[in-house]
Amino acid sequence: MSERGVIDWIRKHAPNFGSGVRVGIGDDCAVYRPVAGEELVFTTDFTIEGRHFTLGDYSPRDVGYKALARGLSDIAAMGADPRFTLVSLAVPDETFVKPFFGGLFGLARKYGVTVAGGDLSRSEKVHVDIVVCGTVPKGKALLRSGAKPGDWLYVTGPLGIWKKRPTPRLDLVEIVRREAHAAMDITDGLSMDLDRLLIASGVTCEITAAPPVCRGATLEDAWHRGEDYELLIASPKRLAKPFHEIGLVCAGRPGSPVPPKGWDHFG
Amino acid sequence: MSERGVIDWIRKHAPNFGSGVRVGIGDDCAVYRPVAGEELVFTTDFTIEGRHFTLGDYSPRDVGYKALARGLSDIAAMGADPRFTLVSLAVPDETFVKPFFGGLFGLARKYGVTVAGGDLSRSEKVHVDIVVCGTVPKGKALLRSGAKPGDWLYVTGPLGIWKKRPTPRLDLVEIVRREAHAAMDITDGLSMDLDRLLIASGVTCEITAAPPVCRGATLEDAWHRGEDYELLIASPKRLAKPFHEIGLVCAGRPGSPVPPKGWDHFG
Repeated sequence: MSERGVIDWIRKHAPNFGSGVRVGIGDDCAVYRPVAGEELVFTTDFTIEGRHFTLGDYSPRDVGYKALARGLSDIAAMGADPRFTLVSLAVPDETFVKPFFGGLFGLARKYGVTVAGGDLSRSEKVHVDIVVCGTVPKGKALLRSGAKPGDWLYVTGPLGIWKKRPTPRLDLVEIVRREAHAAMDITDGLSMDLDRLLIASGVTCEITAAPPVCRGATLEDAWHRGEDYELLIASPKRLAKPFHEIGLVCAGRPGSPVPPKGWDHFG
Repeated sequence: MSERGVIDWIRKHAPNFGSGVRVGIGDDCAVYRPVAGEELVFTTDFTIEGRHFTLGDYSPRDVGYKALARGLSDIAAMGADPRFTLVSLAVPDETFVKPFFGGLFGLARKYGVTVAGGDLSRSEKVHVDIVVCGTVPKGKALLRSGAKPGDWLYVTGPLGIWKKRPTPRLDLVEIVRREAHAAMDITDGLSMDLDRLLIASGVTCEITAAPPVCRGATLEDAWHRGEDYELLIASPKRLAKPFHEIGLVCAGRPGSPVPPKGWDHFG
């Protein structure tokens, strides 16, 4: 199949919810018309064969699902609603393309995400890079830097097992946006991500409870393993399930009392 | 150097022109605040070792320059002004990172582009994926589909030689936005890109003049080689240099009278 044939297939099947996208796949650029009073948030995430997955463990559909799920998880972490995605895919073999997009389009449809463009190329190993754009009312984006002494720290579900098809916590966006001072998603291990949030906020914390642990994982896994795609938030309020309290923010030398041992891509 | 060390270095040196970017490198997402009356255009482009460049021919600085130049060329093709970029870089070896960003930051500074975020990872070969966001007054983005019978077709400079450090034609954005009905950049060869523009517009053309040819290239190169990063535009007006007339749009079976022989990534 020629590049044009592949692109025509993608264009025909790509979810399109409008959602502000005036021009989608097929031009030099996608065009987005913002709504008054909204801000846009953008994330970009690689999903690379041999680094983030292996083709022994992941089908092309799984890779498409996960590539978008990673981006959507970042959008949830900002307290934002996803709008559109741009998908760059480099593959050794074009048979990968359709099932990959099948998995990705399924997830995009579930959350009303328009696939607005991207790039296709060849590469010896599968490389995906996804951009997701979300929207949030002006000034309401949740940053890592907003935690304050007295805030409670929560995680949104059990940790410790690499998830092939993680569910981005977009179901919690409304409550997180209303109740949290700071948020991020847990991808590199709770210990490392907690350290990052506390450093960004210039605070430290006491650990008040162990994080919930996935069946089949250990507490060590829950702290350090990563790829959880749950949220870590700081809120001045007492929150009920699925928010599990793990600590209390306090003043002090910025960083976590639990030494970070998570995933460092250049370590 | 750890991932955090690398990111700290990037954050410290990344051009930041404000330009609507409220939150840049270091959070889960970048945050952009749109200005009333503007639309946003987005492009994403891979630059892959062995596909778009070789490390024998390109220094890391050249790769950084070119990765951004490719995206800026798409922004120019929409008649837009570049605002910010997100840079995803996967490398086998972290010594690549600083000179790569050195080359990229230099070009970003020249055009006032904020580097607002991205992703870093490891890979066996260098893979870059760049997103560039630009802005254009509402409804003014130039599409491929706007050419009309009676429009003159122009290219903006000599063609036929692969350019290691192409100059994106952002210098022509104002005049192109004012005078053109349709525009795209020439990356896959004039023959293929002209065919695409005419098909998107549902028109054909007569060729009225040969395209200008780079010194050292042949007319065949100018038509088919690609990687020119000049613009192809359709305008109802007679335009002076650097616009070189090559044809006249007319009604007929959509497509180019010159058989496309350019670059097909999946061909």
